[in-house]
Amino acid sequence: MTVSTATEQQLTDQEAELSRAYEDILAKGLSLDLTRGKPSSAQLDLSAGLETALAGDYALADGTDSRNYGGLLGIPEARAFGAEILGLSPEEVMVGGNSSLLLMYQYLDFAHRDGAAGPGSSWQDEARAANERVKFLCPVPGYDRHFTICEQLGIEMIPVPLGGEGPDMDFVEAQVAGDLLIKGIWCVPRNSNPTGHTYSDKVVTRMAELPARAGANFRIFWDDAYAVHPLVEKPRPLLSLMGEARRLGNQAGVVITSSTSKITWAGAGISFLATATENLRAFEKHLSAAMIGPDKVNQLRHVRFFRNLDGLSAHMEKHRQILLPKFELAQSLLERTLAGKGMMEWSQPEGGYFISCEVLPGLASKVVELAGKAGVKLTPAGATFPYRRDPEDSNIRLAPTFPPIAELEEALAVFVTCVQLASVRDQLSRRFGRSEQRAGQHGFLAAAPRP
Amino acid sequence: MTVSTATEQQLTDQEAELSRAYEDILAKGLSLDLTRGKPSSAQLDLSAGLETALAGDYALADGTDSRNYGGLLGIPEARAFGAEILGLSPEEVMVGGNSSLLLMYQYLDFAHRDGAAGPGSSWQDEARAANERVKFLCPVPGYDRHFTICEQLGIEMIPVPLGGEGPDMDFVEAQVAGDLLIKGIWCVPRNSNPTGHTYSDKVVTRMAELPARAGANFRIFWDDAYAVHPLVEKPRPLLSLMGEARRLGNQAGVVITSSTSKITWAGAGISFLATATENLRAFEKHLSAAMIGPDKVNQLRHVRFFRNLDGLSAHMEKHRQILLPKFELAQSLLERTLAGKGMMEWSQPEGGYFISCEVLPGLASKVVELAGKAGVKLTPAGATFPYRRDPEDSNIRLAPTFPPIAELEEALAVFVTCVQLASVRDQLSRRFGRSEQRAGQHGFLAAAPRP
Repeated sequence: MTVSTATEQQLTDQEAELSRAYEDILAKGLSLDLTRGKPSSAQLDLSAGLETALAGDYALADGTDSRNYGGLLGIPEARAFGAEILGLSPEEVMVGGNSSLLLMYQYLDFAHRDGAAGPGSSWQDEARAANERVKFLCPVPGYDRHFTICEQLGIEMIPVPLGGEGPDMDFVEAQVAGDLLIKGIWCVPRNSNPTGHTYSDKVVTRMAELPARAGANFRIFWDDAYAVHPLVEKPRPLLSLMGEARRLGNQAGVVITSSTSKITWAGAGISFLATATENLRAFEKHLSAAMIGPDKVNQLRHVRFFRNLDGLSAHMEKHRQILLPKFELAQSLLERTLAGKGMMEWSQPEGGYFISCEVLPGLASKVVELAGKAGVKLTPAGATFPYRRDPEDSNIRLAPTFPPIAELEEALAVFVTCVQLASVRDQLSRRFGRSEQRAGQHGFLAAAPRP
Repeated sequence: MTVSTATEQQLTDQEAELSRAYEDILAKGLSLDLTRGKPSSAQLDLSAGLETALAGDYALADGTDSRNYGGLLGIPEARAFGAEILGLSPEEVMVGGNSSLLLMYQYLDFAHRDGAAGPGSSWQDEARAANERVKFLCPVPGYDRHFTICEQLGIEMIPVPLGGEGPDMDFVEAQVAGDLLIKGIWCVPRNSNPTGHTYSDKVVTRMAELPARAGANFRIFWDDAYAVHPLVEKPRPLLSLMGEARRLGNQAGVVITSSTSKITWAGAGISFLATATENLRAFEKHLSAAMIGPDKVNQLRHVRFFRNLDGLSAHMEKHRQILLPKFELAQSLLERTLAGKGMMEWSQPEGGYFISCEVLPGLASKVVELAGKAGVKLTPAGATFPYRRDPEDSNIRLAPTFPPIAELEEALAVFVTCVQLASVRDQLSRRFGRSEQRAGQHGFLAAAPRP
């Protein structure tokens, strides 16, 4: 029996039971948080070795003192390390400070205002001349902070359906062919935020063709934030976008970012931006007005700590061992309480930091509100959509990584109760015209007799 | 006898002697650098304790884990520390990453494009409506990187004469009264780059009045980069601009920056931006689109390393003991070789990182070129002026801090020879019509007989 096939009596009984359960939760006065994809303390502790990695030796291989000024593209050792992680060559990779988001913002701002390909390539100028606005494609659900950058810069966002294989490329190709002012697309191609999907080879291949199909100076923002963050032992590999694009001569349209925020310390890691070397030179020139160089000491600290890709893999396996029980708990709890009820579907990610949930249309904000009142903070409904507007009001992003396992279990139980309560009340209201009593009382009223 | 009163014969003899000396220098194949104000290795070593300051304890006083995400304005401990250094309250101070230049760029960009005081306050929009450009006042000689920010953002720069007491405030006040599109002024008020001057109380008081005299949303960019960098034992105090401005209700017009770049590690320090709290809130909102937070671990590292203002003062005294011999050497060498010759004037800074030199008009680029050919890299002539254009072509910035003392002496000796050679040749050419021989030969030709 699903919620949509239940009888009025069944729903009424369920509603009463769920209301009592919800009351009990309210009485506990909880304060739990499932909002942001933060690593837990145990994960942060894995990188304690960062602190002793330098041991008083600050010299780079080329003799440069990492403590002093300079080196806008980062230290050669870190560029090589980033290139290894991302399957690129060091000349294509720059290494920044603790925030890859800042690199994305700076690159996008540069392309928008000044033009990433030299005079005449400014997106903004091109749009102004057409008396229009620059546009970006945004696979949804997606990462809220990508959308915020566009919003602040006044770039119009076009949602793109995102499925298990990646963005709907038929839609994407039709869009860019039909509007030359679409200048970019936001992608989290591996262990996607929030769905956990990894793009298929076919999607990557078609993505690599995009710069040739789109208007001038189009850029694919390929945020490979979860490049080495599998939850499964044998993760599905991601085809190299840069490799494919290079083969087609489209490498200038590729901007890849990543960071160690979810590898070492979330707030004190290092970041990577990779693109065609000619793009990197132009970006370096642009950045030189705003900064002298990144924190090279922290870059060296990271390189010394990991030593090589094997060191990184061993480190990520430790993360996986901490994260796996949390994701398994979440999956089994959701399965046990919601499977077959027709109230919610959810992703079963093979990596990354999130579980993406689809509740019944119109109920996401209601669920988030119910949970919030019960002391469980959820990511605001709509956050995974441009302008925070989920047209279906159905997506909720769960972030199970940060809380200790007991807290996670308690928070998820509350979440499930809220999903069930909202779903049952919604059915009562929509199918049987019953309305919720005023706040402070509980249970549903019978439908008012028709006048 | 000065170069301008010497006879032709005296100048000819001097030129021959200096040319030989210059030849000897060329033969040495030197490679020395007096360009940038970088701390030396010995100075960087003073902060070795940063590396062990945390000792595995990453918790802030309020319990926050500094390793994780968040905290856009910096950790409370670092904000309080910055406030102590700058004589402000912690609510007025934010703490950033390793670059105060980036904070300046971000704030200026924000005020220019979006408006730092909310909708309708964008400088750029105001200028566009008037079909003009935004303008900034630039005391000269000044810091090249300030000027580069304006240049990249398309802000027109107006040079302002800078004297021993600070900028010519009569000039400044007349300018802002006459043009409401002048939206800011760049100041290095203490141990100024490059002149080493500290603004007088009178100048600071008049500066504090400026926001009320200028057009809307005017900002004083008060780059207190050398706040704790005296070379003398009892440095002249700098009156508090914020204190004066607050008294007049002009605090929203004040943006103060500083950093530990020349306190701990030049490339791996922490930075400060201070302004009225309402400004700071608006700036925080703007920044939130571009970044999640600064490297809090490094902020905590710094606070733990210094403990308090006394710890900082003791640390800066160690810097002073390293820098003092270099500045003394430079002053005595310049005095011994150039005093009374009418070839160059130079600053005798009481703090900071530079000596500012004024050679005879038109000779700065010639001196820099001669030194460059002889293997001594100097800051390019004009670098201390907007658009790299020194109208007199006379200012040269010397940075004596980085080289070891023996190298500094050698580099300065080359510099002096170049100043002398350029000055003598200039006199021969201008007063006696003599012209330099073609490259590869040396000595001056007699003036060609008039036809």
